Amino acid sequence: MEYRGKNVTISEGCRIGENVVLEDNVYIDYNCIIRDNVTIKEGTTIGANCIIGEYTADWFAEHKSENAPLTIGKNSIIRSGSIIYSGNQIGDNFQTGHQVTIREKSIIGNNVSVGTLSDIQGNCHIGSYVRMHSNVHIGQLSQVDSFTWIYPYVVLTNDPTPPSDRFVGVHVKPFAVVATGALVMPGIEIGQDSLVAAGAIVTKNVDDYAVVAGNPGKKISDVRNIKSHFSDESVYPWREHFENYMPWLGKTFGEWYTGLSDEEKKDLNIENIAFE
Amino acid sequence: MEYRGKNVTISEGCRIGENVVLEDNVYIDYNCIIRDNVTIKEGTTIGANCIIGEYTADWFAEHKSENAPLTIGKNSIIRSGSIIYSGNQIGDNFQTGHQVTIREKSIIGNNVSVGTLSDIQGNCHIGSYVRMHSNVHIGQLSQVDSFTWIYPYVVLTNDPTPPSDRFVGVHVKPFAVVATGALVMPGIEIGQDSLVAAGAIVTKNVDDYAVVAGNPGKKISDVRNIKSHFSDESVYPWREHFENYMPWLGKTFGEWYTGLSDEEKKDLNIENIAFE
Amino acid sequence: MEYRGKNVTISEGCRIGENVVLEDNVYIDYNCIIRDNVTIKEGTTIGANCIIGEYTADWFAEHKSENAPLTIGKNSIIRSGSIIYSGNQIGDNFQTGHQVTIREKSIIGNNVSVGTLSDIQGNCHIGSYVRMHSNVHIGQLSQVDSFTWIYPYVVLTNDPTPPSDRFVGVHVKPFAVVATGALVMPGIEIGQDSLVAAGAIVTKNVDDYAVVAGNPGKKISDVRNIKSHFSDESVYPWREHFENYMPWLGKTFGEWYTGLSDEEKKDLNIENIAFE
Repeated sequence: MEYRGKNVTISEGCRIGENVVLEDNVYIDYNCIIRDNVTIKEGTTIGANCIIGEYTADWFAEHKSENAPLTIGKNSIIRSGSIIYSGNQIGDNFQTGHQVTIREKSIIGNNVSVGTLSDIQGNCHIGSYVRMHSNVHIGQLSQVDSFTWIYPYVVLTNDPTPPSDRFVGVHVKPFAVVATGALVMPGIEIGQDSLVAAGAIVTKNVDDYAVVAGNPGKKISDVRNIKSHFSDESVYPWREHFENYMPWLGKTFGEWYTGLSDEEKKDLNIENIAFE
Repeated sequence: MEYRGKNVTISEGCRIGENVVLEDNVYIDYNCIIRDNVTIKEGTTIGANCIIGEYTADWFAEHKSENAPLTIGKNSIIRSGSIIYSGNQIGDNFQTGHQVTIREKSIIGNNVSVGTLSDIQGNCHIGSYVRMHSNVHIGQLSQVDSFTWIYPYVVLTNDPTPPSDRFVGVHVKPFAVVATGALVMPGIEIGQDSLVAAGAIVTKNVDDYAVVAGNPGKKISDVRNIKSHFSDESVYPWREHFENYMPWLGKTFGEWYTGLSDEEKKDLNIENIAFE
Repeated sequence: MEYRGKNVTISEGCRIGENVVLEDNVYIDYNCIIRDNVTIKEGTTIGANCIIGEYTADWFAEHKSENAPLTIGKNSIIRSGSIIYSGNQIGDNFQTGHQVTIREKSIIGNNVSVGTLSDIQGNCHIGSYVRMHSNVHIGQLSQVDSFTWIYPYVVLTNDPTPPSDRFVGVHVKPFAVVATGALVMPGIEIGQDSLVAAGAIVTKNVDDYAVVAGNPGKKISDVRNIKSHFSDESVYPWREHFENYMPWLGKTFGEWYTGLSDEEKKDLNIENIAFE
């Protein structure tokens, strides 16, 4: 099925494959390549020079293959130079920086942001309201839960004894923050509301609310002990102190949470958290 | 105003916006996108597939906005695949590697070089004769003074308690060297003529002439104690021993410095340094 | 000489220079730029938006120069957005990820793989069956021997006292593994069959079979002591336990090695290794 909604813009130099669905108000900037079987939902903008629905390895044998479907949700912004593979399912309000690569077979929730030069390696499960900054590397099989923050040059690894072909993904739990340049070893669980400090090499599971730093990473504190850089106020759990980009914008986290249905909590994978 | 100087080359596949000024001997290689309100000064080369004057976030709401002016100084070389936002002011003899991203609202002096895959996040102030190698990440609000060297995978961070919306930039002072993979915490001052060793996690201000290494970074020496890898000679302060790319090429640093006017020293932000 | 073999595909939007040889079954996807004096051997695929035979610095003075020859071996796959300079010699079955940069004057053997966003800086000597993952930075003058593994965000540096103009390359010996985020200091030798742990800052030569970790990196074990994450089995030397992508696929390393001629061993730079 090929479909063009109302007010779709396809700029000069674009190459559009077969079975491409472009819903209302989709805007595609110069020189984009949209491969076969791509659905771009309403109001989404694709920046210049992007490749959407990029071929997986199968294609290279004979330069043809049935491209697995790719869906990009509504009101998303894919910035210029990004490459998104076929075979991903991406929610609404997705945003990327430039030159981002998203490999195949990942599921990405709503309101996720992935910064410039970041590389999601495929077979990942990313929740909603996940904020990844520039140049992060999310290894295959990673599970990054909703309401998590991943800062520049963080790597989530997956091979316990490289090289091997038995990968175990990292699991970043809700509200965790992984700061710049931290490396997380395969199979590690980063606990809910924890903070991995910049440059930490994380070799053991991180407790809920723990602060882990160093090489090898050690628990050095509890996030609830951290004061603001500017005052004597506590600033963690961050959800009590920060609302930008978050669904509780304009109210407190608690007010928002109280209003959620059980199904909504489950969708966000936060149904089992006893918030303090 | 649209203007084309003498001997301007615009190669096939380029898309040129409105109010674009291309001075004499500007050369634009294949498939470049030059957005509105861009001025490229004489003798500058733009490599293939670059996007110059890229849209800021405002544009995405309605796919139109008044693009803030961008100026790239004369005799610059922007290598292929780079993306430079609107709203920057960039000096002469600027060079980039490939796939560089320079976000909006930065001021960049003369004779600055930024390596392949580097990412300058915007709202930065970069001096002159700054040499950034590949894949550096310069966070918003960073101040990188003249005659500094930033090596691969260095990150200058800006958020003391992530996530927050109160950023404090790093300040790298003249003649400092930040070696490969060093991470510098928000608000840190890297002292004049200091050396941050490879892989250091810098959590405290770095004294002038100090050598800082480790995680967390500690002062381990004075740069004046460092000998060459090849002989018993001192090699720091580097300005006394290295002249490539520098304005004192062919003479000593001292000879060059003595010949500067007060205004020239002030422009380079080195008017208050008591050189030993 | 310009030559087109049988069944060559040049997709829309490509720009092909002079003296370009495209052998049988070469496939070039959309919008590629192939500069002068490039030879692409049979069965190789060039993904979209690649620049092959990119200009070196000489070109920028007058926007012309004699492009040094570039050869890419047969059955290679260059993924979209990659930039490969003129003046390289690259073997068969070469593979890159996306947005890879390979600078000039390197020699790369057969069956080498270089991941997304990796940056090989030029004047390097890369053996055969080398597997580099995403986002590695291989400094000028590096020697990376056959059967080595380089994981994401590894940097091989080359300047002992930055800034200088006297580089000394790193040497990674056969069967060594350099794990994620390790930084290797200039001139270091990484011993045969050794394992550099994730995040290690390597400041001293690494012994054969050693495990080195930490900042600064210290020998913490012998690879032969490492057990599998999943069982009590030894997993190193990895060549005895892993065969994917390797020429001994379907047999043991020993069986394969025994069948090699002296010349074949020499080509792989493993003629002097006494395998245990």
